Amino acid sequence: MKKFLNSVDTVLTESLDGFVGAHSDILVLGDEHKFVRRKELKPGKVALISGGGSGHEPLHGGLVGHGMLDAACPGQVFTSPTPDQMLAAVQAVDTGAGCLFIVKNYEGDVMNFDMAAEMSEGVLQVVTNDDVAVENSSYTTGRRGVAGTLAVEKIVGAAAEQGMALPWLKALGDRVNAATRSMGVALTSCTVPAAGRPTFEIGDTEMEFGVGIHGEPGRRRDALKSADAIAEEVCAAIAGDLGDRAKGPALLFVNGFGGTPAMELYLMYNSARKIFEKSGVTVTRSLVGSYVTSLDMAGCSITLTMLDEEMTALWDAPVHTAALRWGM
Amino acid sequence: MKKFLNSVDTVLTESLDGFVGAHSDILVLGDEHKFVRRKELKPGKVALISGGGSGHEPLHGGLVGHGMLDAACPGQVFTSPTPDQMLAAVQAVDTGAGCLFIVKNYEGDVMNFDMAAEMSEGVLQVVTNDDVAVENSSYTTGRRGVAGTLAVEKIVGAAAEQGMALPWLKALGDRVNAATRSMGVALTSCTVPAAGRPTFEIGDTEMEFGVGIHGEPGRRRDALKSADAIAEEVCAAIAGDLGDRAKGPALLFVNGFGGTPAMELYLMYNSARKIFEKSGVTVTRSLVGSYVTSLDMAGCSITLTMLDEEMTALWDAPVHTAALRWGM
Repeated sequence: MKKFLNSVDTVLTESLDGFVGAHSDILVLGDEHKFVRRKELKPGKVALISGGGSGHEPLHGGLVGHGMLDAACPGQVFTSPTPDQMLAAVQAVDTGAGCLFIVKNYEGDVMNFDMAAEMSEGVLQVVTNDDVAVENSSYTTGRRGVAGTLAVEKIVGAAAEQGMALPWLKALGDRVNAATRSMGVALTSCTVPAAGRPTFEIGDTEMEFGVGIHGEPGRRRDALKSADAIAEEVCAAIAGDLGDRAKGPALLFVNGFGGTPAMELYLMYNSARKIFEKSGVTVTRSLVGSYVTSLDMAGCSITLTMLDEEMTALWDAPVHTAALRWGM
Repeated sequence: MKKFLNSVDTVLTESLDGFVGAHSDILVLGDEHKFVRRKELKPGKVALISGGGSGHEPLHGGLVGHGMLDAACPGQVFTSPTPDQMLAAVQAVDTGAGCLFIVKNYEGDVMNFDMAAEMSEGVLQVVTNDDVAVENSSYTTGRRGVAGTLAVEKIVGAAAEQGMALPWLKALGDRVNAATRSMGVALTSCTVPAAGRPTFEIGDTEMEFGVGIHGEPGRRRDALKSADAIAEEVCAAIAGDLGDRAKGPALLFVNGFGGTPAMELYLMYNSARKIFEKSGVTVTRSLVGSYVTSLDMAGCSITLTMLDEEMTALWDAPVHTAALRWGM
């Protein structure tokens, strides 16, 4: 295992210390590393809380700040946070208007966020499940929540900042999730620090098609194809699943898994955009970068979120987090 | 070679097409992919132009925009751009106040930017050489220009935006460069698409200490050490070279080389910050991320820029590029 670390037991806490230290203008670390929260809370605003296993950085901690999340609860690497983390976060950021949990659809996360919601008052939840690759997976009943979660957090975060009420935000989150589809491809495995070796074996000329963000199996193992051929099949899966909805304005988000450089991500974006635009999608908003990662895995995912005017305006609204920032 | 590409001959142009397509709100691509430039020029402002071999993205194209560069000339991967690229960029962005070239110290870059400067009027140059690892290197006489170049581009870019004159900007650029030191460590090699295989061999438990951003040899090949031990030695090299200047406010920039995820970069930041602060440096500004990369190389560099009040204010000034954005 070739990683920058001191001990596998302290990777997460040292990384969080560095993260909050580097962004101390906007972030505060909760006791015992239970959560990361916005430094300045906004009384009367619904609090948005997300979280999940670590190893997907900058998701979710890097998306905490003005116009997005109020707190994020980091679990151990690829392991759900515990309910007491969510409860501590609720206590820290709920200013009286209630909380919305944004949860990626994995059994551990769903169970633990559910438990925390039941033990709190005034909490609603949005569960994201944008991955079209497979219906059930290693840690998931139903579809997995992957990179599209960022679109939900950005758009709902902007609406929360504008003062919308909890039930309205819950409905908006479900609407953005329903308008979003993703699929990913891995060229290499990731390596979980505590395991010390690659999560899966993959040959020098192979790719995992439809991979999950923990290295879970996708649709199939295949020979590595050209960027255009990969994009063609991923985009077809996304557009096919959206059906008649895959027309008109959309956000195209090409996401790196951690080990793939920007040059390749922009090349994939170029390919995916041409393919989608041939079939009636108009790419009106774009995001390219490593935002929802799988540690050091080489690979990328493509996400399409169909946008209406309201969602577009909320996407454009000012945001100030460690990983996404514009308009302020 | 496991990369997202269609043909090694078109990697660069396809990636540039995607890059400018994704950021068409602020960027325009020059004819024949000779340069990337700001969409909206500011008459009367000195134009800042940089460039170099591709493979270091987001440097330099991702740093073009309000408050930073006016144009960037991308060479082939790890190969200097040609003088006609710089001449075309000058023609496109010089609004009459002159141009400043910001050039990383590599023989090919220096020669080609020199040639373009001689063929133009009203051009001055800043050559960056912040890498303390080695005095001469594979492609360099003197020290290499590496991640610290970003600090020069940001600070001088802000001053240019505020209307400062060419000689003053040249002096500022030299001053920022002189206040900046960097050093990097590689855990894996990079793979140049046209070569199709790793630039250098490196064992499963080895690191290249003081590596260059093209995979050039550093100070030595060594056994992979703990993050703290690596940071200790890198920070000592930087502080030692700065000597008495390594006191007071500074920008600490931990830069990923392309294949290292955010979790590890923040862990390195945490370690480096503690070490510097023990010796009298006060980290007042921070940047953590993959900004000056070496394709898919796993590794990182640490950069320290000693800041005065003027440089701090210029660092904080609004910027809107693909890779760095704040205040607007």
